[in-house]
Amino acid sequence: MPTQPRLIDLAADTATRPSKGMRQAIAAAPVGDEQRGEDPTTLALEARVAGLLGQEKALFLPSGTMANQIAFLVHCRAGDEIVCAENAHVFGSEGAGAAALSGAQFRPIETATGLFSVEDVARRLRAPRHRSPRSRVIAIEQTTNRGGGRIWPEAEILALKALARENGLALHMDGARLLNAAVATGLAAARFAAPCDSVWIDLSKGLGCPVGAVLAGPEAFIEEALVWKHRLGGAMRQSGILAAAGLYALDHNVARLAEDHANARRLAALLGAVPGLALQPGGAVTNILFLDLSGTGVPARALAEALLGEAVRVNVEGESRIRMVTHLDISAGDVEAAGRAIVAALARLRAAPQGHAAP
Amino acid sequence: MPTQPRLIDLAADTATRPSKGMRQAIAAAPVGDEQRGEDPTTLALEARVAGLLGQEKALFLPSGTMANQIAFLVHCRAGDEIVCAENAHVFGSEGAGAAALSGAQFRPIETATGLFSVEDVARRLRAPRHRSPRSRVIAIEQTTNRGGGRIWPEAEILALKALARENGLALHMDGARLLNAAVATGLAAARFAAPCDSVWIDLSKGLGCPVGAVLAGPEAFIEEALVWKHRLGGAMRQSGILAAAGLYALDHNVARLAEDHANARRLAALLGAVPGLALQPGGAVTNILFLDLSGTGVPARALAEALLGEAVRVNVEGESRIRMVTHLDISAGDVEAAGRAIVAALARLRAAPQGHAAP
Amino acid sequence: MPTQPRLIDLAADTATRPSKGMRQAIAAAPVGDEQRGEDPTTLALEARVAGLLGQEKALFLPSGTMANQIAFLVHCRAGDEIVCAENAHVFGSEGAGAAALSGAQFRPIETATGLFSVEDVARRLRAPRHRSPRSRVIAIEQTTNRGGGRIWPEAEILALKALARENGLALHMDGARLLNAAVATGLAAARFAAPCDSVWIDLSKGLGCPVGAVLAGPEAFIEEALVWKHRLGGAMRQSGILAAAGLYALDHNVARLAEDHANARRLAALLGAVPGLALQPGGAVTNILFLDLSGTGVPARALAEALLGEAVRVNVEGESRIRMVTHLDISAGDVEAAGRAIVAALARLRAAPQGHAAP
Amino acid sequence: MPTQPRLIDLAADTATRPSKGMRQAIAAAPVGDEQRGEDPTTLALEARVAGLLGQEKALFLPSGTMANQIAFLVHCRAGDEIVCAENAHVFGSEGAGAAALSGAQFRPIETATGLFSVEDVARRLRAPRHRSPRSRVIAIEQTTNRGGGRIWPEAEILALKALARENGLALHMDGARLLNAAVATGLAAARFAAPCDSVWIDLSKGLGCPVGAVLAGPEAFIEEALVWKHRLGGAMRQSGILAAAGLYALDHNVARLAEDHANARRLAALLGAVPGLALQPGGAVTNILFLDLSGTGVPARALAEALLGEAVRVNVEGESRIRMVTHLDISAGDVEAAGRAIVAALARLRAAPQGHAAP
Repeated sequence: MPTQPRLIDLAADTATRPSKGMRQAIAAAPVGDEQRGEDPTTLALEARVAGLLGQEKALFLPSGTMANQIAFLVHCRAGDEIVCAENAHVFGSEGAGAAALSGAQFRPIETATGLFSVEDVARRLRAPRHRSPRSRVIAIEQTTNRGGGRIWPEAEILALKALARENGLALHMDGARLLNAAVATGLAAARFAAPCDSVWIDLSKGLGCPVGAVLAGPEAFIEEALVWKHRLGGAMRQSGILAAAGLYALDHNVARLAEDHANARRLAALLGAVPGLALQPGGAVTNILFLDLSGTGVPARALAEALLGEAVRVNVEGESRIRMVTHLDISAGDVEAAGRAIVAALARLRAAPQGHAAP
Repeated sequence: MPTQPRLIDLAADTATRPSKGMRQAIAAAPVGDEQRGEDPTTLALEARVAGLLGQEKALFLPSGTMANQIAFLVHCRAGDEIVCAENAHVFGSEGAGAAALSGAQFRPIETATGLFSVEDVARRLRAPRHRSPRSRVIAIEQTTNRGGGRIWPEAEILALKALARENGLALHMDGARLLNAAVATGLAAARFAAPCDSVWIDLSKGLGCPVGAVLAGPEAFIEEALVWKHRLGGAMRQSGILAAAGLYALDHNVARLAEDHANARRLAALLGAVPGLALQPGGAVTNILFLDLSGTGVPARALAEALLGEAVRVNVEGESRIRMVTHLDISAGDVEAAGRAIVAALARLRAAPQGHAAP
Repeated sequence: MPTQPRLIDLAADTATRPSKGMRQAIAAAPVGDEQRGEDPTTLALEARVAGLLGQEKALFLPSGTMANQIAFLVHCRAGDEIVCAENAHVFGSEGAGAAALSGAQFRPIETATGLFSVEDVARRLRAPRHRSPRSRVIAIEQTTNRGGGRIWPEAEILALKALARENGLALHMDGARLLNAAVATGLAAARFAAPCDSVWIDLSKGLGCPVGAVLAGPEAFIEEALVWKHRLGGAMRQSGILAAAGLYALDHNVARLAEDHANARRLAALLGAVPGLALQPGGAVTNILFLDLSGTGVPARALAEALLGEAVRVNVEGESRIRMVTHLDISAGDVEAAGRAIVAALARLRAAPQGHAAP
Repeated sequence: MPTQPRLIDLAADTATRPSKGMRQAIAAAPVGDEQRGEDPTTLALEARVAGLLGQEKALFLPSGTMANQIAFLVHCRAGDEIVCAENAHVFGSEGAGAAALSGAQFRPIETATGLFSVEDVARRLRAPRHRSPRSRVIAIEQTTNRGGGRIWPEAEILALKALARENGLALHMDGARLLNAAVATGLAAARFAAPCDSVWIDLSKGLGCPVGAVLAGPEAFIEEALVWKHRLGGAMRQSGILAAAGLYALDHNVARLAEDHANARRLAALLGAVPGLALQPGGAVTNILFLDLSGTGVPARALAEALLGEAVRVNVEGESRIRMVTHLDISAGDVEAAGRAIVAALARLRAAPQGHAAP
């Protein structure tokens, strides 16, 4: 494949490719039929993640989206309501799956950071009436993707849990980047995860695996989740091939997330001084960095296209917003090269005649 | 029943009871089996409402909630998204039916008045992506119930229709109180309704009928709506018994909605000078009036309970909000009595020792 | 309307029109807002039907289809399975509503009579496995409509109930014509209904009301059913207008169902001797009579059209099957006239040149 | 793991484990982000399967169950009906997914072989009526799993396709073992698959891959299928890891299915003479063999347990039915050993005192 100059892909941490060591682990994986509960590698991964998250049981799944959807399917009945951030992945990037599959509706909270308060939720809980949606789930993202990789503090999670318990709600954590939060804070992942009624981690983002997510929760929850895994078509056979990568990643790729965070801060430092360019408030916290280009007059799409010409990929998130994500396949040198490319491209595009904007 | 002093029921215009003339029309209605298309009274009502709303066809239904749900079921596939006001009836008072039945999710807009702009919608339309919800419907309420009976201006409806057409969306109007808007503005109902891809009016609110709503739209829409009417259990038999009330109401109870509006303004005038009591901004526009009690320190529930003791009923809408609705069974004298009762009760409650607030 | 000779409508007992007495009851009904639990007539009807069926509570609904659908919605979660007769109304005449609304699938049993045995059900119960549908409901029809108005014996219902209890299933009765079974057997309706976990009677068939059905069950079931009544759009306002007809019918139109049964037997007697014409095995049991025309060579559609020319309407149920239903608006004289018309039409059509058959 | 004597696993061909060559192919796979359309191995597999099946496009999925469910989701709207065999995988082994996800109901046909005729289907198509389910899909299994691995003849598929086209239905093939049919008949897979409106093959059964299925159809169908792949959580990242196994299998493991068929016949020959033991009528056609033990008086569960004690696994399919499936990991010698073990176990169990049967 690599005939062109190697792409510095900051668009998403889903871009990570399995390393040589991970490929060896995959090739050597002991396997069996997962649907009969006989794949030893998948069983080992599930047990390990359950322990990591302080939950009773865990379930290997082909994706994080399926983990979110199954959690809602188990927690909700048709007509229920889920409180979440308006920029949450579950609300905007899963094809309205909660409505389509669970028959539940979202009650979104507008929040730039993806974080919200107990009061934000409490105000939105519905009094029980025959014609009202039934408030049923609070869904949070650790870290907040579109909110710039922000970390939900443990205390806030505990407060949400208390509110949830009082009101008969479930607290669900989309932990796609939970391990980034753990590494960044130095706290065990279970500190954030154990209070939740359901929580999952993604293997195919910062951890560098090709495929998979692991959903965890109480035993009865996982038992029901397994029924939905079958119904949605997520039950596989010799899934140890994929689970082996997960075990490898938990051994080798967790502590190193600190490098991704350092690289994101490095990128922020490189770009912080560009006039008109606004970093996300508070700067990079974990491995995500949003840029607001509106002060530069350069459309996000124009910048992204210019960068692609120089083998740097970033993600367009609206007319003047760019998201960059650091990960396993991005070195400090890559970040510096990318930073320089961005500064140069912005300078060029600002000098260019107006009307260049993408439609 | 009426052994106590007659209740002045301002809680909702759904409280109206069929008048003597309406009961005679009901008793005399020619009927047939609706499901065979043989109920002459129901057919006559459907034809009349279609004409009134400038639509090709119409369909009699047991309720307005069913009209909203069927419209979504016909317009949407699972995974679609509906833009509406956050205080819309469809979002908060129909049991999350759009998710439960259509598999569609709402994208609510925060708006005190229930009105929103074309730009508010445009900003929320999703770019087509495999994993995004598909933007599909714009839903508006004429008049806006929780927004205080505000009227969507014709020009705004036409602008939303233009946006909808450009983007392949349907424009749906919950016209529960559309005739109030028509009477208040002096414009024909079709001016507001004809641009919509689906629209319904309620018979059981200001029009004073016991049961029913009529959904209108293009012929192909109504054909599909009829399938859903059967599936949801809304298909009836000799429904002419109900439709007769609708025809009677269209003959006798439309122009008189002006009295309800005058009564709402009368009520606003009576209450406008009470210190600490805030009327909805702009005052009464049609037959709805919201009061904000937060400046009085009196909890809404306490006021409502006090009023009930004096045979006046109002609706509690949050900790310090009250809704009052004028209608066919409320006279100018009733409004004056209610206004006096409110002033007196507020005075009493403010004088009462603190801690009296409902939990 | 009646300018033509009066139609003898044997197509369905849904054709009944409210009598003068019933219309008076309707016009005089005390009413209130049903959704606030304030319609005295609806409350009275619900209490009366609950008692009649030996159940704790009852709920007035706009149709029997909604009663079936709500029962499934309360009993089932998505992925559940309902055992029923293949010719049941719920399987063939409700728009696949159980799948569309509850996400449940039917496991139909082929049975000409609409009756089936405990063993028929037991063989179809699924062992609990992660990937199997979950057996959840047994649904029976009293009487069996497409099965020819057959009566489920009390003993069979008790046996099904025992099976259901052992296996964690709900037993649901579509009692559209339950009162026909009660009158025909001389047993109280509750003998058949009380063992069921949910059961409803139709007001708009043999009872002669214009609109409505009443669903009954345990208190917790009805509480949940009320939520679904709202969500589906079945919640009405001054529904006492309809409920008054129900109360009138329970006073005046139950015992007289015996006449309908006698008329169905009279019709069977008139037609029993026509060569090639086969009555349903066992003849008329309640108010339904199926004819099999295959021995006559006359297509069902041709016969139905010929009869319509003589103001007799019957229902076509396949290429050579006809259904006739006796009811409140059909007298013994009507049945005799219809019988003569059928004999004469069959004779004419058999003499006619071939190829006359409808497509 | 393998400390016990190696298990001869005839329970299912899902038991196959990736061979050394396949593991090498997996470890060496070029990969990219599938969700961006950038995984070269997955793209190559999809193109190859589309060609193999005579369809425009194909889509890699984590399982065959997801392939079936997505096909129904694309073909159906809520309230539609799918005609299939009563022993089809989609009806009994996918958690009522068609109802739960698509809102569609099955109209199952009782058939021991899993095959049915055009007339069987034609008789079950519903006339279009407002209250009827809409007939929408004919679903067939190639080969028929619970029907004993029978092959749908090309002519029958073409006849079903003609019926489908006339009636606006889609013809869907669950091709979990389509390649077995192709190899057994010597016909190209496309002969069976190209007439279908949607069709998939499984990689994790006879082909010996760890995970995956590939769904094929017209371009517009696959475009919509991709939306549902995301919504259900089937969209993955570096899925080339799995797709590489598929490409390897298509190169190495197709022609050899003939050995599995020979082994199934070999097994049939070994067991054909055991008194009281009935092979499936017609014997083994592909790689599946059902045994009926009812003539032996030995419960299926007892036989299966006895065999497990001798390291032979078979599948219990009812009280006196056993299914055995040959595959990549079963040699001729294995089959002979298994045959001998079955003969011996049956002899032992018949000699044993009665009452030994499992509950």
